[in-house]
This record gives sequence, C-alpha cells and structure tokens, in this order.
Amino acid sequence: MPSFGLRHRRAWASLLSQLLRPSGLVCIREVHFHSQVSEAVITSQLKPHREKSNFIIKTPKGTRDLSPQQMVIREKILDMVVGCFKRHGAKRLDTPAFELKEMLTEKYGEDSGLIYDLKDQGGELLSLRYDLTVPFARYLAMNKVKRMKRYHVGKVWRRESPTIVQGRYREFCQCDFDIAGQFDPMIPDAECLKIMCEILSGLQLGDFLIKVNDRRILDGMLAVCGVPESKFHAICSSIDKLDKISWNDVRHEMVAKKGLAPEVADRIGDYVQCHGGVSLIEEMLQDSRLSQNKQALEGLGDLKLLFEYLTLFGIAEKISFDLSLARGLDYYTGVIYEAVLLQTPAQSEESLNVGSVAAGGRYDGLVGMFNPKGHKVPCVGLSIGVERIFTILEQRIKTSGQKIRTTETQVFVATPQKNFLHERLKLISELWDAGIKAELLYKNNPKLLTQLHYCEHMAIPLVVIIGEQELKEGVIKLRSVASREEVAIKRESLVTEIQKRLSES
Amino acid sequence: MPSFGLRHRRAWASLLSQLLRPSGLVCIREVHFHSQVSEAVITSQLKPHREKSNFIIKTPKGTRDLSPQQMVIREKILDMVVGCFKRHGAKRLDTPAFELKEMLTEKYGEDSGLIYDLKDQGGELLSLRYDLTVPFARYLAMNKVKRMKRYHVGKVWRRESPTIVQGRYREFCQCDFDIAGQFDPMIPDAECLKIMCEILSGLQLGDFLIKVNDRRILDGMLAVCGVPESKFHAICSSIDKLDKISWNDVRHEMVAKKGLAPEVADRIGDYVQCHGGVSLIEEMLQDSRLSQNKQALEGLGDLKLLFEYLTLFGIAEKISFDLSLARGLDYYTGVIYEAVLLQTPAQSEESLNVGSVAAGGRYDGLVGMFNPKGHKVPCVGLSIGVERIFTILEQRIKTSGQKIRTTETQVFVATPQKNFLHERLKLISELWDAGIKAELLYKNNPKLLTQLHYCEHMAIPLVVIIGEQELKEGVIKLRSVASREEVAIKRESLVTEIQKRLSES
Repeated sequence: MPSFGLRHRRAWASLLSQLLRPSGLVCIREVHFHSQVSEAVITSQLKPHREKSNFIIKTPKGTRDLSPQQMVIREKILDMVVGCFKRHGAKRLDTPAFELKEMLTEKYGEDSGLIYDLKDQGGELLSLRYDLTVPFARYLAMNKVKRMKRYHVGKVWRRESPTIVQGRYREFCQCDFDIAGQFDPMIPDAECLKIMCEILSGLQLGDFLIKVNDRRILDGMLAVCGVPESKFHAICSSIDKLDKISWNDVRHEMVAKKGLAPEVADRIGDYVQCHGGVSLIEEMLQDSRLSQNKQALEGLGDLKLLFEYLTLFGIAEKISFDLSLARGLDYYTGVIYEAVLLQTPAQSEESLNVGSVAAGGRYDGLVGMFNPKGHKVPCVGLSIGVERIFTILEQRIKTSGQKIRTTETQVFVATPQKNFLHERLKLISELWDAGIKAELLYKNNPKLLTQLHYCEHMAIPLVVIIGEQELKEGVIKLRSVASREEVAIKRESLVTEIQKRLSES
Repeated sequence: MPSFGLRHRRAWASLLSQLLRPSGLVCIREVHFHSQVSEAVITSQLKPHREKSNFIIKTPKGTRDLSPQQMVIREKILDMVVGCFKRHGAKRLDTPAFELKEMLTEKYGEDSGLIYDLKDQGGELLSLRYDLTVPFARYLAMNKVKRMKRYHVGKVWRRESPTIVQGRYREFCQCDFDIAGQFDPMIPDAECLKIMCEILSGLQLGDFLIKVNDRRILDGMLAVCGVPESKFHAICSSIDKLDKISWNDVRHEMVAKKGLAPEVADRIGDYVQCHGGVSLIEEMLQDSRLSQNKQALEGLGDLKLLFEYLTLFGIAEKISFDLSLARGLDYYTGVIYEAVLLQTPAQSEESLNVGSVAAGGRYDGLVGMFNPKGHKVPCVGLSIGVERIFTILEQRIKTSGQKIRTTETQVFVATPQKNFLHERLKLISELWDAGIKAELLYKNNPKLLTQLHYCEHMAIPLVVIIGEQELKEGVIKLRSVASREEVAIKRESLVTEIQKRLSES
C-alpha cells in the first residue's frame, strides 16, 4: 500500500472508534441488520368503509429502510467521501429526483429499459434519474456553464433484478465527483483516479485495484479485429461480462447470440485477456494491428500520459490497464475506469462478492447532446458505489460484534423522587439552551433505576440528578455513568461544569 | 424574545459569517439565484438517427436545481436543524423515495390527488412519498417498534400548483422529528414545540408565533355548532384557509359550497376568530356549549397541561392557542401546531409571504392503520419547511450583496515557470495526502497571474509557489493571498507550516 493513505486511515480508524460504543457498557437492544425484511400480513381495521383486503406491509421490491444503526455507518461513509471531494475543491450541486423523460433517452444504451417512469397524470412525462451524470450534463447545458468541479450525493433508481446479498438495490445512493471543462489532457482524469484511491484507502476496505481502459482503444480494437461498427455496442456489453463469466462463455455469446464470425471473436479474445501497466501500453502501441488504428493510438497515447501523472501521485501500482474493461454506459468517449476489491476485509469471515465499488470515465459528448448548437463541454468524473461499501462495512461490524451508538446524548436528567417533573423540565431546558445534548424520560414519576438503566443502555456518559435535598441546598448531583461517581455541584455552575467535563472526555 | 435563543443565535451568526467571503476580496463571478429558470430550445444533433424535434431543456415543473451557492445555504440550514434534533436525542432513519401505493391511500384526505404515482411497468404499484410521517409509521409497524425518537431529512413530492415566489415546490426537502411511544401526557408534545422554537430562533428568521389547537377541540366545536359529522373534514379544510382569506369568504364557502346552514356557520365564526393564551383555554373550559362536549374537554385539558410545560421551557409567550388552526392532513388526532413568521427579516427589503415554516401534531392512530391487529403506537412530531426558510435566507443574502464561498480550498499550488507540471502534481499530492484542501490549474503552463487571480476569485487563503530557484534551494514559497506577503519555507516542513497557519486563522 502506498504511504499516502496512512493519515486518512488513522482518521478513519478514529471515526470508526467514535461510532463504536465503549466496550465496558451493557447493550440491551441488539443491532438490527436487514430489519426491513420482516413482513407482516395486515388487514385494515380502522377504516370501516374500506374494502377489507389482506396486504403485506413492506418496502417496494429492491428498496429498503436504513435503521438508525445503518444510518450511522452510512453517514460516516458519506462524511469521508464528501470530505475527500471537498479536499479536491469541488462545489456541491443538487438536482431533482426526476427529469423530463426525454432528457434521459439515448443516454444509457441497452440499460434504458431499467429507467423508472412516472405515471402520466396530465402534464409532463417524467422519469426518475438513473444516475447523477446525465442531470449534471443537463445542468451544465441549461445554465451554459463551461467549467465546473462539482460533487453530488443523492439517490438514483434502476429497475434491475435486485441481488440483495451483493448490496445491489433498485434505489441506491451515489456520490459523484466530476470535472467539466476544456483542459490540458489527462490532468483532471488523473485527479479522478487519485480521488478514488484516497477514498478506497481511507475507508480501509482492504486491497483494491483500479482497472483502466479507453473507449477509443476499445473501438479501435473492435475495428481492427473486424467487428462491424453497428455491432460495437453489443460486443462491448458482452466483453463487459468478463469479470463475471469466462472468456469461453463470452465468446459463445458473441458468436451464437450476436452473430460474430468465430475468427473475429478469437482476435478479440487475444486482446481482452491482456492487462498490465505501462509496459502493456508500450506493447499495444507497437501492436501490428492496433497501431494501424488512429483512435486506438490516441487512446494509448493518453493512457501513457495518464500513467505518468499517476506515478507522480504515487498511485500507479494501484492501476491496471485492462483491455477487457468495457463500461456499459453509452456516453463515455475516452478513458474509463472501475475499482474492484481484491479480497474481503480481514475482519470479515464471510466472503462477500460486491463487484465494483467505484467507477467512472470521460464523457466529452454528453453536454453537447443538450446544447442547441451541439457545443461540447468535455467532462470526466467518478461515482462511488456507497451501497456496496456499506454492505462490506456493515458485515464487518456485524462479524466483530461491535455495538453502534445511534444517539449523541451527553447528559441525562434524572430524579430519585416523585413529583419532580417540573424541576426536570426546567433543568433540561437550560441544558438544551446551552447547546448540551440532553434527554429525560417522558414520565411523571419514573423510577431512578429505570432512568440509570436507560443511560447505560444508551451509553449516555453523564447524569444530572435533582431531588428534594439538592433543591433545598441549591445544588445538583452530577454522576458519571461509567465510574458511578457522584459529585454535588452548585446549580448555577452546572452548565459550565458539564461543558468542562465534556471537553475533557 | 426569550433568552434561550441567544447562544444559538451567536453560533448561527458565526456560521453565517463563515460562509461569507472575506470582504476585502474581489469576486468576479456573480452569485446566481434561480439560475434554473434559464431555458434553451435545443435540437438534437449528435444522434443522426434521432427524430429531429425542438425541445426545451429544463427541470420538471415545480422542481429546481440547487446551485453551489444555494447548496451552501441549504447545508447550513440542515446542519442547524439536524444539530437541534440530535441535541434532543433523536436517531436518524431513512426510507425509500417511493412506497407501495396502498401504503399511502387514505392517509391524506382531500390531498390524495396530489400524490405522484409511478408508471405501471410490471410489478408493484408505487407512489412517491408525500411526506416523511407515513413512511415512519409504516416503518414502526413493519418492524414492530413501540418506542422511537427519530429524525429524517429527505425530499418529498406533491403535485401542487407551484407558486415559486413563495418558496413552494413540487419537490421539496423536509426535516422531521417524531417521538413514538406511550408516555405521560403532553411531555413529548411540549418537547416538539421547544424544538420548533429552538430552530426558528437559531435560524434568526425574525419574530415568530406558533399556533396551537387540538383536533378534539375542533371536532367538539363543530359538533356543538351543529355540523353533521360527515361534513367535519370539508368544514375543517375551509377553516384552514382563514390565514389566507377572510372569515366572510370562508363563511361563504361553508354555506354556498359545502351546504352549511348560515346560523351554524355563524356559530363556528364566533369560535374560530378566537386566539390567545392560557386564559382563552380557561374561557373555553367554561364555555356553555363547548364544555358539554367530552372530546373538546379532553383537548382543552391537555392544552392546559401543555401550556404548563411550555412555561417551564420558557416559550409560552411564543405559543398562541388558535381555534382557527385546522391542519389539513387526515391523520392528526390530538394537538396540532403550525409556526408562522410575524414579519420579514429586518435585512430584507422585499416582503416575502412564505406561510408556515414548521408544523406538526399528534397522530395516535396512524401506526395502527398498518398493524394487523390495529395495535396503536401514539406519535407526535414536527416538520421543518426547509424550502421556505431557504427562500428567506437566500433573499436576505441577495439583498445584502454578500458573497458566498462555494469551495473550502485552503491552498493553491502555483508556479511562475513553464514545464513545472510534474513538480506541481507531486506537491499537491503531498498536500492532499496530509488532508489539506488544495487545487491547481489543469494546464501544463498556466500564467502566474492567471493562477493568482483564480485564488483571489475563489477566496483561497494560501498559495504555494514552486519554481526553478525554489527547487534548487529545496524551498517553497508560501504566499498569503490577502496580504500578498511571501515567505520561503523548507520543502520538508511545508505541510507542518501550512497546518500551523490554517489552525491559526
């Protein structure tokens, strides 16, 4: 592993440790994973006019709720990802969840059938966004923005057959970083790969590799192998399956289903089974067939430059030029990349195949598709697959048996006596107004033991106790939940004392 | 204003000042507000096989993009709101953007027609969520959760006629806080009102008032006035318009459109024009007609207790018992409330009518609608209307002419010489790896003036300059953009020196 990740790894380790509960504390409630799979058949009873029908209470197919425990993990991932995007000078953008249907057409090739359409309820025809890239291009064109480095965190929707065990959903969160504008070649592209490395190292997901290829090399390769241009897309989508099925199966699909001549498929096979570093680029530049193709040469030249920059960034060893990488989306025009984890995290005992965890590429023509004069704005970007990363981290925490704190409450307001609700309310109000995170039980006369149990259960570090004696003496008892030590403090210095204690811990 | 808000106001003022650019700096690009309204007619040119058609490039009706400037304002609002929710011990939850259509039916009364349905593409019938409350109730029922204090930040969708000037959209962000569970009366309800006060004071939106009523008082009032039960909903929705149209117009609607006898309408008129504090509650408890109604008496008793707690929280003066408040949603069963701003912020010259900025209430029956045995989980909660608050703050910043920083870049890496890209890339990589937010221009040989201009334009405080001389001497020049002072620093202590400078500023 290159040394650059060390500092981030340390920061992440400290984040992780913050979100884990102090080990000495009792935890009563269990962490619920995939609680959304619980289902109950219900009959409507409250509305007598309603037609009685049994229905299952669930979330829609391929979607899920995120429980508080899951939200803590997800928020930590997003914080780290967004922190990296900001470190690279990106601005934040937001776009609507749906777009005019026509904005999404002809952008996703074979995958267009997976777009969710809204019902025609009179008015515009709308579709849920399929990614964050097309809305970004639409934004640039609509506002005539020629340069922009932006990030976007948001949900996207795809009507895929969900394979929930692999962390694949029909609704999922993407974190995108993109650089739009005409710049000198490969500098922004290299920064995108640097960002992917920083994030994947920072999240401590174990060893990873980023496969790189170029759309022009792919097209050139197909051309020199003898594939007719009309079949480029279909053949690319076959090649794209090489990380899941064997070359023999891919070859069969090309010949039997997509009508390619066997010798053409074999020529492709020679290329797509190659991967390596700069030396492979050099080799391909000398390749008798490929070097005859202008497009391929351009792509190879750019990749060579890219590796120069990656070396300066200290990440060349994480990147592999892979001729089998053929990202599915229609809009890529240049370099493409995809990050895969090489092994499951050491802490996890179960093997998880989560596929690619980050991907992206250059799309120089997409903005032009939205421009009346076809004016292009070259773009390059990346997308972090939050759900897959989440699945790994959730699994890791589950395996380790670690407990997650889902609230940040610092102080609990308790009383050992009856009829002290008014005093408790006055007291907690003071704490809230001082910015202290505080809770009490919503009962007129709770038992002291119940109150103290709640603090242990929720890992609240401090308890403020008020009773008759304290009220008489103008003091408050401050109790440390961990040590069970109690001290009396003057009522008027309570806030100061609590703030002092919290800043020390 | 009560004193509790002072500390938060100070924190918010400091937040606001952080997001404003140092006044001494030149700002070249203007802040773009409502840039999404720009539209361009485009013809598709890139795909020759496509049917040529003119279409307008825009976001769907009632939706908008949020520009980086707008996102900064929005993020600050969300940070403050979420900070308050956490202060009150809430856990975060997330639910899918859409639900099974049947989950949303019979929850929203007359407004059900405003729900966005998804197209039937085979499979389940789905609808976009209309609020965050029904998904929360569905989550509680599905997971058999009996107690939970949660918050949820997310978008919801309503097919309303958008009135964009008032900050009303078809897609908008809600921040919800809810307390589910069986507790002693009015303690959680009072906390919800406390939270609304803390947030509205903290955001410095100017003076505000929270109107409070109770569904049982409303129903009781309608009953004793002689409204047939079948007309309760229709009459309530007429009453709900009293903040927009006069009593005479509301009366006309009740009589002419909804078939109420004139004398019944007049009796209602006597009540709904009343508002006040605890003394009004006492008066209503003595009211000859109302005191005959069991439901109304229960509601009045609870409101009396609520005001007791509000007094302890120091916020009673911000709350007004208002018999005209009749929140539209079907699911409320007890206390209901709605916060309105009493005046536009002092800084704003234009008058903005944004309506209610926060609202909520008690809904004890909603979870039971999802439970096979009708088991109830009493709930009370509130929703912050982010879009409306956003509109006010955006307007205020626009009026003041203040500029917003949309990136957080701390250091810019520059060179005065040609052929220094490699050195710049090595250097910036070091900074990124040390967690420093850094940028450079994506050009092989940018001019020094262009680079320094960029720093001033983007309000980047520090510039690191590397050239031949520095390289030879093993130093780096560190320049302060504001003072234009430059010092030479040993290359190896650059990161430490930058971190020192950043921590001081």
